[in-house]
Amino acid sequence: MPDSLQERYSPNCPCFGCGPANAQGLHIRSFPQGDEVVADWTPAAHHEAFPGMLNGGIIGALLDCHSNWAAAYHLMRQAGADAPPCTVTADYAVKLLRPTPSDAPVHLRAHVVEAKDDRATVEATLASGGKVCATCRGTFVAVKPGHPAYHRW
Amino acid sequence: MPDSLQERYSPNCPCFGCGPANAQGLHIRSFPQGDEVVADWTPAAHHEAFPGMLNGGIIGALLDCHSNWAAAYHLMRQAGADAPPCTVTADYAVKLLRPTPSDAPVHLRAHVVEAKDDRATVEATLASGGKVCATCRGTFVAVKPGHPAYHRW
Repeated sequence: MPDSLQERYSPNCPCFGCGPANAQGLHIRSFPQGDEVVADWTPAAHHEAFPGMLNGGIIGALLDCHSNWAAAYHLMRQAGADAPPCTVTADYAVKLLRPTPSDAPVHLRAHVVEAKDDRATVEATLASGGKVCATCRGTFVAVKPGHPAYHRW
Repeated sequence: MPDSLQERYSPNCPCFGCGPANAQGLHIRSFPQGDEVVADWTPAAHHEAFPGMLNGGIIGALLDCHSNWAAAYHLMRQAGADAPPCTVTADYAVKLLRPTPSDAPVHLRAHVVEAKDDRATVEATLASGGKVCATCRGTFVAVKPGHPAYHRW
């Protein structure tokens, strides 16, 4: 399997959702695919809301970090840069359409629907067994020098 | 310290966010206080986005579960019931206003802004050091018999 965006651009990142260097994190691995960024992720038992179903906070954490990478990758390509800008989440809104099974992988898809120089709006879905279980829309902003997140991942 | 809502009404719940029985979960402990439900929670190192700052997905997970308990407790009292209905999240929207330090406890506050027989809309904040770092608005629905979450927590 080729390197994910996270492994390629932030291998030492400790982020709970997407940091390759966080031993107890979710380890989201996001890959560009056409105009989208996609990821497959397998729940662990402690990510459940109750036996058999994935917790909604974990669903949001997956969609947040994965969408943030879709935004960063888009802004990088838009600017013709070699590395993504350090983007942070300004907001994200999750709709839980149906229970998400915790005994099967989930599939994440995200795409940028609007972008300016320093920010992007991303829409994303989380599906299980081919059915969309949750959707997300979020805004992700490239931070400037002086922000506590600047060059921190 | 008296029992939290979670310890009183769902001591065996394995939920990642609020289950007393999840050894690797967040263990949110929510307490009624006037018209609000409040909680204090201390981050662990692996909940960070990058060193010193809390991950936005964890922030959403905290606000989601804590708000769900505010909804369940409100619906219980509104119905004059002895135990809360089993509520699930329909949607939640998080705004991240400023970075949230990960080296200090966060304070959660939630209150119901609208309720019907079987659902409630909840607004919540997450603050650190007296400053609101994130807000959330969500909808939480009491599930009916037959739903996979019915009587599962």
